[in-house]
Amino acid sequence: MEEKMIKRLSLNEIISITKMRGIIFPGSEIYEGLANSFDYGPIGTLILNNVKNAWFKKFIQECPYNVALDSAILVNPKVWEASGHLKNFNDPLMDCKNCKARFRADKLIEDDLEKKGLDPNADGWSNEKMEGYIEENNIVCPNCGKHDFTGIRQFNLMFKTFQGVTEDSVNTIYLRPETCQGIFINFKNVQRSTRKKLPFGIGQVGKSFRNEITPGNFIFRTREFEQMELEFFCEPKDEMKWFEYWRQYCFDFLVSLGIDKENIKFRDHAKEQLSHYSNATTDIEYNYPFGWGELWGIADRTDFDLKSHEEFSGKDMKYVDPITNEKFHPYCIEPSVGAGRLFFTLLCDNYVEETLEDGTTRNVFKLHPYLAPYKVAVLPLTKKLSEEATEVYSKLAKYFMVDYDEAGNIGKRYRRQDEIGTPYCVTIDFDTKEDGAVTVRDRDTMEQERVKIDDLADYITKKVEF
Amino acid sequence: MEEKMIKRLSLNEIISITKMRGIIFPGSEIYEGLANSFDYGPIGTLILNNVKNAWFKKFIQECPYNVALDSAILVNPKVWEASGHLKNFNDPLMDCKNCKARFRADKLIEDDLEKKGLDPNADGWSNEKMEGYIEENNIVCPNCGKHDFTGIRQFNLMFKTFQGVTEDSVNTIYLRPETCQGIFINFKNVQRSTRKKLPFGIGQVGKSFRNEITPGNFIFRTREFEQMELEFFCEPKDEMKWFEYWRQYCFDFLVSLGIDKENIKFRDHAKEQLSHYSNATTDIEYNYPFGWGELWGIADRTDFDLKSHEEFSGKDMKYVDPITNEKFHPYCIEPSVGAGRLFFTLLCDNYVEETLEDGTTRNVFKLHPYLAPYKVAVLPLTKKLSEEATEVYSKLAKYFMVDYDEAGNIGKRYRRQDEIGTPYCVTIDFDTKEDGAVTVRDRDTMEQERVKIDDLADYITKKVEF
Repeated sequence: MEEKMIKRLSLNEIISITKMRGIIFPGSEIYEGLANSFDYGPIGTLILNNVKNAWFKKFIQECPYNVALDSAILVNPKVWEASGHLKNFNDPLMDCKNCKARFRADKLIEDDLEKKGLDPNADGWSNEKMEGYIEENNIVCPNCGKHDFTGIRQFNLMFKTFQGVTEDSVNTIYLRPETCQGIFINFKNVQRSTRKKLPFGIGQVGKSFRNEITPGNFIFRTREFEQMELEFFCEPKDEMKWFEYWRQYCFDFLVSLGIDKENIKFRDHAKEQLSHYSNATTDIEYNYPFGWGELWGIADRTDFDLKSHEEFSGKDMKYVDPITNEKFHPYCIEPSVGAGRLFFTLLCDNYVEETLEDGTTRNVFKLHPYLAPYKVAVLPLTKKLSEEATEVYSKLAKYFMVDYDEAGNIGKRYRRQDEIGTPYCVTIDFDTKEDGAVTVRDRDTMEQERVKIDDLADYITKKVEF
Repeated sequence: MEEKMIKRLSLNEIISITKMRGIIFPGSEIYEGLANSFDYGPIGTLILNNVKNAWFKKFIQECPYNVALDSAILVNPKVWEASGHLKNFNDPLMDCKNCKARFRADKLIEDDLEKKGLDPNADGWSNEKMEGYIEENNIVCPNCGKHDFTGIRQFNLMFKTFQGVTEDSVNTIYLRPETCQGIFINFKNVQRSTRKKLPFGIGQVGKSFRNEITPGNFIFRTREFEQMELEFFCEPKDEMKWFEYWRQYCFDFLVSLGIDKENIKFRDHAKEQLSHYSNATTDIEYNYPFGWGELWGIADRTDFDLKSHEEFSGKDMKYVDPITNEKFHPYCIEPSVGAGRLFFTLLCDNYVEETLEDGTTRNVFKLHPYLAPYKVAVLPLTKKLSEEATEVYSKLAKYFMVDYDEAGNIGKRYRRQDEIGTPYCVTIDFDTKEDGAVTVRDRDTMEQERVKIDDLADYITKKVEF
């Protein structure tokens, strides 16, 4: 087969295709939206489920160390005292006195550093340091061009709500800003009920909420998002060994899903960028259409969380070694990735425009078959073959998601399936009745093969394994 | 096989086992909890996922009519104006003037009706009617015994939060109290992108939140809960046909999951109990330890929601018949069930204590194998066989969830697996090396069978099909 011309689609092209094809819709669209919220359409829902299933398969099912958890979004607010979120989970905001626009001070500084070719990172800077930098470098308002800012005000990013009948401080609770705290507070219950010995991990997939001032870049950053977090507990002396292990495990997972190695890299945080509780942190970054950005964070959180919950709850959060009887707080390695962020990465990495030999082009969503929304589309050549086609559909639908399409010419139907990532199209033709076979077309090679209907489910199942 | 003595476990026994075995933990337990919230433990998470997967398989994957959606929890607040939730989604509260305890007026009345052997249902009663009943029947405070209540105050059940930097009405949004509105507002986007023709359905699994005054009965009613909702759109003239269809489909689904037919029944709502938008509603009720209660609601919502969103958004929400070009609002049939409610039902229906022939007893969680957290537990007879056992574990874990347990005597290990519902235990013994086979023990019959390791994955896969 000769080389095809392949071009990655732009972000705008992706946004337009995903809406048209039922992958991602703007949230609350008929009511003019809700800032940067999105709904997953019929196709997107299937892909998102598969992304979560892939994580669960590799991080829980096939991993003898790890077990799962599904903890509540709403928890006792003391959890956020202990975790430090009530005090420290803030964005540094400042307003332009001239035009009243509001900005994140750290972002203004990072943009300035980047323009000057310096490391664009203001993580962990104090208010004073940020205000000083903005003053000394005469940074102006991106909106009106004036240099006239208010001081910095810290704004907490947790969504606040009230449980019970009165809206007072007694009833104030928060939507969790991360799923991992649900894991830490259940550490003893999980360890006791599973009788797991160190090292072991607890993984969780679930929604979190952050009242971000500047969400954006389509589904890259949204206020409501889904996390896939693993908290892996080990002996303190083994922290670096397991940190390296999970760092590499996550990288290999991405590659196994078909993400181009050239588009991902490690970025180790420098000592001064580390959170106060962390001994080491690495981001796996992806080369997004708007530049390199964080895809996956792997952090060594030490024993900070368990110790802190012990202090605030008064409950023992130690692990007891079953052989030595030694009691101690395990260290914790946390690989944390957003399901939507990974979905977005797959859109960027897998959506291509191919120029074929005859000079025509087609859009193809080259998703790993395991992640594809439909494994197969059943396409009767004409409507006269619907009965046979429906029978094939029903047989296959017992095992995996199958699309059915009998409208329009077959070329157009292939293109539609290419665009939603269906790896195999099954065509029912007039020979099918006689030879009990169908034509299977491969999305990527566009090659066709004749397969017996009786072998079809097995044939596809093998092809989409992960 | 002779008849075994079988006894359903009590709710208290279930609560205690589910905590001990890592199925369900009290929420925020180390911080003295958060009223009636729960976390799903390692075993419970797997079961809950399987419950959702079973619904998805039968309501989406195998159903050619339906597609899926995953819409956001946070939406533009106009959605709740259109749906009527801002105005009408209230609980009627009254306080005892003597002891200050707070009650739901409708619940006080229903308790009284029940005591008198009357139909315990005050749905749709006005404040005046409720206050009148309480006065005339001299209903007293369940807490202090005095008859001295305040008037009824309507309390909205939506959780309120604020998006953006100020806590004012402009930024007030709500956690969705039901997933279906996310479906209605996306009706046109879904129809356009999938080119579905009537009748067709849109299904969704996701969290909803209701600030209930009296949650309770373990996970039967919680403030944070997960819904599995299908909105099925059809021509107005076909409403009753499809209402009957889905009513029966849900019932059959429950039976196919192994729920005892004797424990479920239909309860049709009387005309005066119907919501104002509904032409017909049926609950499938289950015989819970505390009495019959709603498991699944099937409602004919007519064209209320689409019309209402058209009115409030100004956007066309009509369907266009592709043949006649007729434009109209489809009718909608909604089967809606809680994933946690169904989980709870399975706990009640499937947890039994069995008295064996020798007079000893065992607890068994007789879950449908498809719903079981682990399909198989791999148990080496002694620790000397760990290597062989680990190999079997790794082979099987590629296909489904597998537990591994090498601690304690084999009888105790069987009992633990019985209690978490594992349908098959695979024992590795000293013959395994020689004959390449293992002993498979069936949870329910306790019978054993010798199976080749090479055939094991297929053997189990067939057994757990759904």
